[in-house]
Amino acid sequence: MKIGVKVMPRQEVLDTQGRAVENTLRQNGREVNSCRVGRYVVLDLPETDPAKAMEKAKEMAEFVLYNPLIETFELEQL
Amino acid sequence: MKIGVKVMPRQEVLDTQGRAVENTLRQNGREVNSCRVGRYVVLDLPETDPAKAMEKAKEMAEFVLYNPLIETFELEQL
Repeated sequence: MKIGVKVMPRQEVLDTQGRAVENTLRQNGREVNSCRVGRYVVLDLPETDPAKAMEKAKEMAEFVLYNPLIETFELEQL
Repeated sequence: MKIGVKVMPRQEVLDTQGRAVENTLRQNGREVNSCRVGRYVVLDLPETDPAKAMEKAKEMAEFVLYNPLIETFELEQL
C-alpha cells in the first residue's frame, strides 16, 4: 500500500528555496504571488489495510520524515 | 489560485534520499518495501481561472521546477 507524505515549511518559517523560485519566475516574466517548496515522500508499505497503513505512515513521518519545529506534514493514500 | 506541483525522481533513477530513508526505517524496526523522496512545490498564482492557472503552472514547472532527464511531475489544484 502506497502512502504519500507531503512535508511543507511552516508559514512563519523563511523558505529560501521557495523565495529563490519566486525570484527566478519573476525575473523571467512569470506572475506569481508566492511559492513554497517542500518535500514529497512516497512510502510503499507491506501493510495492506488502508487504516493501519495510514497509521504506520504517520508514525514513520513523525519518527524520521519531518521536523516539527519548522515543518508540517499531510498524508494521502495513493 | 494555488497549484501543487509534485516532482518525483524517475523509477530508473537511483534515489539516494529515498534509499537513506528506507535504511533508517528498516534499521529501526519499521517495515517498508520502498521509499522515494521528491519535492512538492506550491505555486500561488494571481490567475483566477482554474484551467489557465494549470496551464501557467505547467509552463513554470517545465521552465524551472523539474529536470526531465531524471524527474517527472504532476499538477493538482489546491
